[in-house]
Amino acid sequence: MGFYVDGILGIDFGGTSLKSCLATGSQLKLYDAIPTPKDMAALRKSLMEVSKLANDDLHTSVAGVGIGLPGLVGQDGEALFLPHLKDFSSLNFVQLVEDIVGAPARLDNDANCAGVAELREIGACASGYEVVIGIGTGLGAAIFGPGGIARGFSGFSGEVGHICIERNGRSCECGRRGCWEQYCSGGSIRSELDSAGWVDINIEEVFREMDVNPDFKSLVEEFCFHLGLGIANLVAILDLERVVLTGGLARSLEAVLPKVRRYYLELVEGAGARRETEIRVGSLFEFAGAIGATYLWNLVDG
Amino acid sequence: MGFYVDGILGIDFGGTSLKSCLATGSQLKLYDAIPTPKDMAALRKSLMEVSKLANDDLHTSVAGVGIGLPGLVGQDGEALFLPHLKDFSSLNFVQLVEDIVGAPARLDNDANCAGVAELREIGACASGYEVVIGIGTGLGAAIFGPGGIARGFSGFSGEVGHICIERNGRSCECGRRGCWEQYCSGGSIRSELDSAGWVDINIEEVFREMDVNPDFKSLVEEFCFHLGLGIANLVAILDLERVVLTGGLARSLEAVLPKVRRYYLELVEGAGARRETEIRVGSLFEFAGAIGATYLWNLVDG
Repeated sequence: MGFYVDGILGIDFGGTSLKSCLATGSQLKLYDAIPTPKDMAALRKSLMEVSKLANDDLHTSVAGVGIGLPGLVGQDGEALFLPHLKDFSSLNFVQLVEDIVGAPARLDNDANCAGVAELREIGACASGYEVVIGIGTGLGAAIFGPGGIARGFSGFSGEVGHICIERNGRSCECGRRGCWEQYCSGGSIRSELDSAGWVDINIEEVFREMDVNPDFKSLVEEFCFHLGLGIANLVAILDLERVVLTGGLARSLEAVLPKVRRYYLELVEGAGARRETEIRVGSLFEFAGAIGATYLWNLVDG
Repeated sequence: MGFYVDGILGIDFGGTSLKSCLATGSQLKLYDAIPTPKDMAALRKSLMEVSKLANDDLHTSVAGVGIGLPGLVGQDGEALFLPHLKDFSSLNFVQLVEDIVGAPARLDNDANCAGVAELREIGACASGYEVVIGIGTGLGAAIFGPGGIARGFSGFSGEVGHICIERNGRSCECGRRGCWEQYCSGGSIRSELDSAGWVDINIEEVFREMDVNPDFKSLVEEFCFHLGLGIANLVAILDLERVVLTGGLARSLEAVLPKVRRYYLELVEGAGARRETEIRVGSLFEFAGAIGATYLWNLVDG
């Protein structure tokens, strides 16, 4: 594999942290995650920081920037609707990044970036029907069919975190109720931990300690149930050969995958009549989005 | 348009009634619907009846039979899982129909048949991303992308009636809980009418009389809410340009489409940032499945 354009900065704006990396030739350098900027001043400062890191590493200016954003992104480089970053909804990210970094920028949905990156690592499944689900602060997906990534009417496909799984359920940052990500995301676990007074623990610890702490056990069990439920919904609709889990939370999921599969099989329509849908964890985790963002620039096979 | 094979009998096994039609050249003859047979003896009798009708009209034997079934159908002609016709799950329909009718038979999911038939009438939408939802006793769909109908890993895509919209909701005939069709189908309306003591009224009357009977009004309003909710789920996932409603219940929906659209817009993620998804009623209604079943035989454009 190789980049036509050398020196691409990939930036993934997560709901909680901003991940970035630099692609030079076929090499990738991952930078430390930083907290996601929440206002314009912090955003400008963060962009200057990652830009400086990349320029220093390259000993020249980056050639281009790829950006992944969590939500609906427009064709002209603007954010259209970002449930977890409301202050930046309707901001033209491409323009801003180009101004600050001084290089041309391209934009895509973060889950689409992550999905493309994961499938470059593990290869597409034989039938082509698969979904890569990114689980971080929120929940999103890239949907693939035999023709490759399915973009949809306006390029917004894969907003799976906002399918309603409980008609009158929990309020969601998107303004609606009962969205899947309110029951199955880093954000949902975080808010349950907060209400139980576990403020300083991180989510990886919660997964690690589930066998010794009954509070954590029921929380993780609920999470696995809802992950199985949402996957069952997607398989009912799309009849998927494979589901790949990625994003920051996916790191913790390997240990509970048998649980997730068991719930999935209980919850999918006609389980006994179906060929088995593979459910697996990807390999890029929290950096899938940033790595995929560099692929917005002329990556070709070979 | 024209059929390569002349004299095709199309049969659609609905949860409540069996629809059939005969395609000769470019002509279609629709037969009266009959109650869906529920046991093997009734099934054989019904097949002999519709076969006789078609043979008499042709003055010879039918050349082939297309069959639409509500559920998961296998590649070898067998029903794999039929939530509303449990006694026929695992029956080889192709074999049985070929034995009784004496002509070769082909099989597909009923919603796929209906979807293909509706899109032949109204043309595919420009982007290709659309769903045709068949609403009768249950709820199913055909999913289309730019490459045409999306079949999925095993040919089971579009089982949208069995996405869970209420985690611990109403029991479904598929064995699970909270399925969309438990809130949004002829079957769901029927069971609410039954429990309210309205046993002898048909569902078309309920829609027609909704403005004069407050019981009917709230029932239809709930139905429209759930139709909007499910469409919002599908649009979040698939970013659809168009949703076409067909099947027996679609006849009654034209009058309440503005309501359905209003709920949809309330319930879809990022409504203000999206281009408008068209929601419309098809033109073939309860015969969409049977007509589409005849298309399993070598229909070509031109």
